Amino acid sequence: MLQHLPALVVLLTVLLQGGTAFAVGRARALYGIKAPATAGHPGFERAFRAQMNTLEATLMFLPSLWLAATYGAPLWAGVAGLVWVAGRVWYALAYLRDPAKREGGFVLGSIGLLATLAIGAIGLCRVLLFG
Amino acid sequence: MLQHLPALVVLLTVLLQGGTAFAVGRARALYGIKAPATAGHPGFERAFRAQMNTLEATLMFLPSLWLAATYGAPLWAGVAGLVWVAGRVWYALAYLRDPAKREGGFVLGSIGLLATLAIGAIGLCRVLLFG
Amino acid sequence: MLQHLPALVVLLTVLLQGGTAFAVGRARALYGIKAPATAGHPGFERAFRAQMNTLEATLMFLPSLWLAATYGAPLWAGVAGLVWVAGRVWYALAYLRDPAKREGGFVLGSIGLLATLAIGAIGLCRVLLFG
Repeated sequence: MLQHLPALVVLLTVLLQGGTAFAVGRARALYGIKAPATAGHPGFERAFRAQMNTLEATLMFLPSLWLAATYGAPLWAGVAGLVWVAGRVWYALAYLRDPAKREGGFVLGSIGLLATLAIGAIGLCRVLLFG
Repeated sequence: MLQHLPALVVLLTVLLQGGTAFAVGRARALYGIKAPATAGHPGFERAFRAQMNTLEATLMFLPSLWLAATYGAPLWAGVAGLVWVAGRVWYALAYLRDPAKREGGFVLGSIGLLATLAIGAIGLCRVLLFG
Repeated sequence: MLQHLPALVVLLTVLLQGGTAFAVGRARALYGIKAPATAGHPGFERAFRAQMNTLEATLMFLPSLWLAATYGAPLWAGVAGLVWVAGRVWYALAYLRDPAKREGGFVLGSIGLLATLAIGAIGLCRVLLFG
């Protein structure tokens, strides 16, 4: 079962992105910001940046998770991935309220990302060097 | 052959993104918007937002497609994926002309995404619960 | 060993994105641009656009790399991928200084992307047509 933990993390990243996209749609309606505008109210801009920052972070995270699950160990990749998800949920919720308070979630998410990346990079180097 | 349908969908997502990126480049030249500016003419801003929305949607879709193909069934993952691609092509083309008319493509794309996600999530839950 | 070259390229894409994200964070501090703002100083806007363009390019590249490694040949996928990485590093560094000088890196990155895409598309067509 534990070798499927990274797949569960992948599912959670999709839900996380769905959540931040939903918050942008709601803010668009709430503050009357019509597409293609992406500015006009601080509440909308916070939701929009929370979504974009989640997007940027996810595109670094998913390849790292794949490396960690393939070349490291699925269990540890999954655990580090869950740390990343927890940090990014915290980050997005904090950003929606006050961008100045996003640091805690950012740090936790970064720990999860760096752990995933380290697990993957070490495993890949071992395979490249020793076959 | 049908088990390779998801790979064909992956190829189409790259072409879709290439198309929306091309439209931005063309709008940049057409309306004289020099990088790094991303505003200055409604036609450019529509092309730019169509590309960004495609990017956001793709990063939710590809992990869902992977889950559906790996834990569900490649054939149904591929069919749901083709629905997503059709919806997002419609969405992007509509957005370039008039953002108010993007709804049809958005709904069809969302159906494709939710179907892919459901196929993947159900398959993953089955594996996690019953091994 | 050579069949793991694409994984090394994946690792490099994560580092490339980390580098462009780091440049944005540094520019945010240097020019005093507080989140959620993404404008206010040309130096910040260049760093921000370099990151976003890298993001856009990466989301086209990684699925292409997967297709090339899975349906083409891992070695050639990896070589084309290294060309892409070299082009995009050049692009990002040039963009940070002067967006007008980003063309060389853009062209080299595009050659890498098109090569990866061609390797993947040809391999996939062969499998779809001849099983």
